[in-house]
Amino acid sequence: MVLRVGVNGFGTIGKRVAYAIQLQDDMDLVGVVKRTPDYAALQARRAGIPIYTPSEREAEAFEQRGIHVRGTIEDLLDSIDVIVDATPGGTGAKYKPLYEKHGVKQIFQGGEKPDVADVSFSTLCNYEEALGKRSVRVVSCNTTGLLRLICTLDKAFGVSAARAVIIRRAADPKEIKRGPINAIVLNPPKLPSHHGEDVRTVLPKLDIVTAAVVVPTTLMHVHNVTLRLSSPVTRRDVIAALEEAPRIMVVSSEETGIKSTAELMEAARELRKRSDIPELVVFEESVTARGNEVILFQAVHQESIVIPENIDALRALGGLAQTAKETIALTDESLGVGQPLW
Amino acid sequence: MVLRVGVNGFGTIGKRVAYAIQLQDDMDLVGVVKRTPDYAALQARRAGIPIYTPSEREAEAFEQRGIHVRGTIEDLLDSIDVIVDATPGGTGAKYKPLYEKHGVKQIFQGGEKPDVADVSFSTLCNYEEALGKRSVRVVSCNTTGLLRLICTLDKAFGVSAARAVIIRRAADPKEIKRGPINAIVLNPPKLPSHHGEDVRTVLPKLDIVTAAVVVPTTLMHVHNVTLRLSSPVTRRDVIAALEEAPRIMVVSSEETGIKSTAELMEAARELRKRSDIPELVVFEESVTARGNEVILFQAVHQESIVIPENIDALRALGGLAQTAKETIALTDESLGVGQPLW
Repeated sequence: MVLRVGVNGFGTIGKRVAYAIQLQDDMDLVGVVKRTPDYAALQARRAGIPIYTPSEREAEAFEQRGIHVRGTIEDLLDSIDVIVDATPGGTGAKYKPLYEKHGVKQIFQGGEKPDVADVSFSTLCNYEEALGKRSVRVVSCNTTGLLRLICTLDKAFGVSAARAVIIRRAADPKEIKRGPINAIVLNPPKLPSHHGEDVRTVLPKLDIVTAAVVVPTTLMHVHNVTLRLSSPVTRRDVIAALEEAPRIMVVSSEETGIKSTAELMEAARELRKRSDIPELVVFEESVTARGNEVILFQAVHQESIVIPENIDALRALGGLAQTAKETIALTDESLGVGQPLW
Repeated sequence: MVLRVGVNGFGTIGKRVAYAIQLQDDMDLVGVVKRTPDYAALQARRAGIPIYTPSEREAEAFEQRGIHVRGTIEDLLDSIDVIVDATPGGTGAKYKPLYEKHGVKQIFQGGEKPDVADVSFSTLCNYEEALGKRSVRVVSCNTTGLLRLICTLDKAFGVSAARAVIIRRAADPKEIKRGPINAIVLNPPKLPSHHGEDVRTVLPKLDIVTAAVVVPTTLMHVHNVTLRLSSPVTRRDVIAALEEAPRIMVVSSEETGIKSTAELMEAARELRKRSDIPELVVFEESVTARGNEVILFQAVHQESIVIPENIDALRALGGLAQTAKETIALTDESLGVGQPLW
């Protein structure tokens, strides 16, 4: 069986999900919904992706630029099994009644509230929970980064508490209207930040407190994470567990000279499409163990980290893979996740 | 008795210390040592500050610009009781033999190694330890911020452990050669950062781990601090203790709308010389208490936070005040520390 998929929205996440679906053998990208006939629409045309518009109103502008429009979102919804909603945060919930009306399963992004879907999702934590569900919410980039780390170390050692400080990039590289350009912004001033609560949509019992700031950079988020484990560990134990896990890349600053998000991204520009780093990057020398306390730095590429999880979520909804291991193998092979950066 | 003081270096810290000394009744600014006849030298002339040069070599360039040079650093050292070394980090240690040769007491900044002086110093923690010593090292801006918080809450509740993530400004506003301009830099990648060790130069027994990143902004540092107290507290207890303490300003984001370093600095531009904020700023809504764990955000104005401590250190070396309380009253009144920002 080949799963018929549509993508609503062709921004940072939507376009990556669409191109990733094209690389899967068990899925067919029926089309994407796009509002404006810009450079990204021209690239979609070049990639042979059928384009639909939110309503008939937007179609003419596309046709004027020589971009054929297949129909409206309703036409797309009538031709697919699952829609990946990649609209701006909060918009997905407004679309949900339309998706339901057309009887398609739904994948939402982390910008939606948890109640938009049957389950909040992160492959390394709860793939099996999403199997056969009607709708799934793939948690946000920062939450995905935290969950990959926590679930990996929880399986290896047991995690009893987590504290994290999230240093957020202010905007994605393509965004020209967001700030700050010279400030550290408490995000928000009141603690905890929502990220801990978001982690708990997947791990409801975890004692977790997060704090976040926004800083003037576009490349990646950085987290400083402190975990309390069930028993004492050595830093070598922790590094070994992380190196074994899928979708986590342990980078040695001493061996590579990389000590910032800029240098990491420069390496990715050489070997990765769009310089995407869907892996969670843990900095090896930062891993510190003191009794049962582990402290480390990790970096999250906000544009691409959730793409593998979106593909996995499609397999879960479509019943295309029965285990996390199975979908991870397919997704990571097709997208090059885990391929060396040097 | 009036203490005769010289300042070596007229950069970010040196000029602020010099202008602050001019405001003290029990000290006399004999002169500053400056290397280049730039705008800051012209401002020193306007402020009536006698200028000395590192050697006779530099004097001519000053005279050509109409700035009178009183002599060399050796002439200055022969006319003072204490020198405040505000030269670039590591340079103070090279000057120390010269200071000793001329028999003057010394104040160094946090950029020097701890062994440069008899004692590392932070007024709220160990003023009395510095009394009558020959040399004192005023710890760096970040360490001063951490110590003000920790010593205040230690006196109120007992602090058994501290964890802090330091989000550092990349450069001071006047600096045009430093970066990054688009990256988050691990500072350093290996944990812990030196800040915890520096805190221990004042509080040797504290269990403290710090991590730091550098981000593209010039205004202030931000810390996320987690403290383990000896017993459970409420957030109201913590806020009350901080509000009572000198040199700590508790700012409510809800009441002021301030949620970033930029907005804080904008408020200071209105009411403070150079927009200096020598107080440690704690964000009220961030203060979170969970059992005996306290988590909060604080901001450190790197250019000015150590200025009151430099003035106090002069009083300690000169025996001008026998208690922290006494010097704090004099320093804070003269510099306007603790005056409202709105």
